[in-house]
Amino acid sequence: MKFYDLSGSDNKRFSPFGWRVRMSLAHLGLEENAQVELVKFSQKDKLKFSGQELVPVIQDNGVTISDSWRIAEYLENSYTSQPTLFISLTNKAYEKFVASWVDSQVHPLVAKCVVRDILDVIDPNDREYFRRSREERFGMSLEEIVANREETRTSLKRRLFPVRKVLELNPFLGGKSASFADYSVFGAIMWARITSSFDILEEHDPIIDWRERMLDLYNGFAREETAREH
Amino acid sequence: MKFYDLSGSDNKRFSPFGWRVRMSLAHLGLEENAQVELVKFSQKDKLKFSGQELVPVIQDNGVTISDSWRIAEYLENSYTSQPTLFISLTNKAYEKFVASWVDSQVHPLVAKCVVRDILDVIDPNDREYFRRSREERFGMSLEEIVANREETRTSLKRRLFPVRKVLELNPFLGGKSASFADYSVFGAIMWARITSSFDILEEHDPIIDWRERMLDLYNGFAREETAREH
Repeated sequence: MKFYDLSGSDNKRFSPFGWRVRMSLAHLGLEENAQVELVKFSQKDKLKFSGQELVPVIQDNGVTISDSWRIAEYLENSYTSQPTLFISLTNKAYEKFVASWVDSQVHPLVAKCVVRDILDVIDPNDREYFRRSREERFGMSLEEIVANREETRTSLKRRLFPVRKVLELNPFLGGKSASFADYSVFGAIMWARITSSFDILEEHDPIIDWRERMLDLYNGFAREETAREH
Repeated sequence: MKFYDLSGSDNKRFSPFGWRVRMSLAHLGLEENAQVELVKFSQKDKLKFSGQELVPVIQDNGVTISDSWRIAEYLENSYTSQPTLFISLTNKAYEKFVASWVDSQVHPLVAKCVVRDILDVIDPNDREYFRRSREERFGMSLEEIVANREETRTSLKRRLFPVRKVLELNPFLGGKSASFADYSVFGAIMWARITSSFDILEEHDPIIDWRERMLDLYNGFAREETAREH
């Protein structure tokens, strides 16, 4: 299996969607099967074979799949797991809901906290492109976007209310064990953790305990990844 | 079984939490078992026996339960159903996530669309209390809150993105059939539908099809309830 994941300088892998796939692979015991191919922003030609230009992409048994959701579906269909990646294999509704919620309502706030710091961890050749494209999207400079990030963090805390409520009932969003719902939220957490020293969770947020549990999963491989920076 | 539900004038029952319970009762085939006791804002003394002052409240077999989530748990535990109210009875994570998301991220936007209209459908004796308490909460007059409700509706549309994504995979949030996740979102819809002629969904929103399916459930009893007004 080949796994194309985004990378910054020093092979830093911070893509939140890449992390959804990495955690899913680890969930299925496949992390070591996947040969990782790192792709910088300026190396999108590496993905040409996939018919689109976004990481993550998986190549496995002659099949090419892009998009973290479709990759997770493919992995779950091709490699049985117990517990499954989705609470219900027949409807996948919970994980779809949470992943779409993270995409639309969590990522924008996380970006408003760390987008300036991402600039420092990507390849110097990618910085002009990154600054220009993100400043266009937000309509202001990277420095202005993150200027009030303590306030943004307070909004994020409110936004994460449903995560906190589920964690009052269960150790993981998936229940007794983690599911793709956990990996979707965790992807956002790792995105921030690897690119920035700014903690997107406020002190004493109970979600911190869950983050520790997530960092411990699968022999702590996510924690190990960030140990170099923290 | 006795079911205490909020009411306005003309016995209009618009509480979003009341609707979560009504749909759950119908799901379990219990709608007709429940003797409804209507409670206006100014009649909170009727709930004294429950040790708190919020509807909905259920009394059943000598047990008193308040809070729509706890009522749903009680109903599912006491009356078996197939399909169950929760996709997973062991973790209830999905429905808890969606209900908490509606509470924190959908209801505030719906309120910003219809709170002024609610004033017109509640008992005249309740209006002063209602206006004062809501204006205090929002820090402006009811009229100012709803002044830009077309814009609020556009925000709501974006907010409902994960609902739309799940409905691309399944006819209901619960999958092939409705679960408490559906009833939580539907509660917000009914809250608006019964109190206001302003449609909180924009034309052509695919969620409208789901709303129709929800209105058809259980012999169309929710549709019948609103037929008087629409």
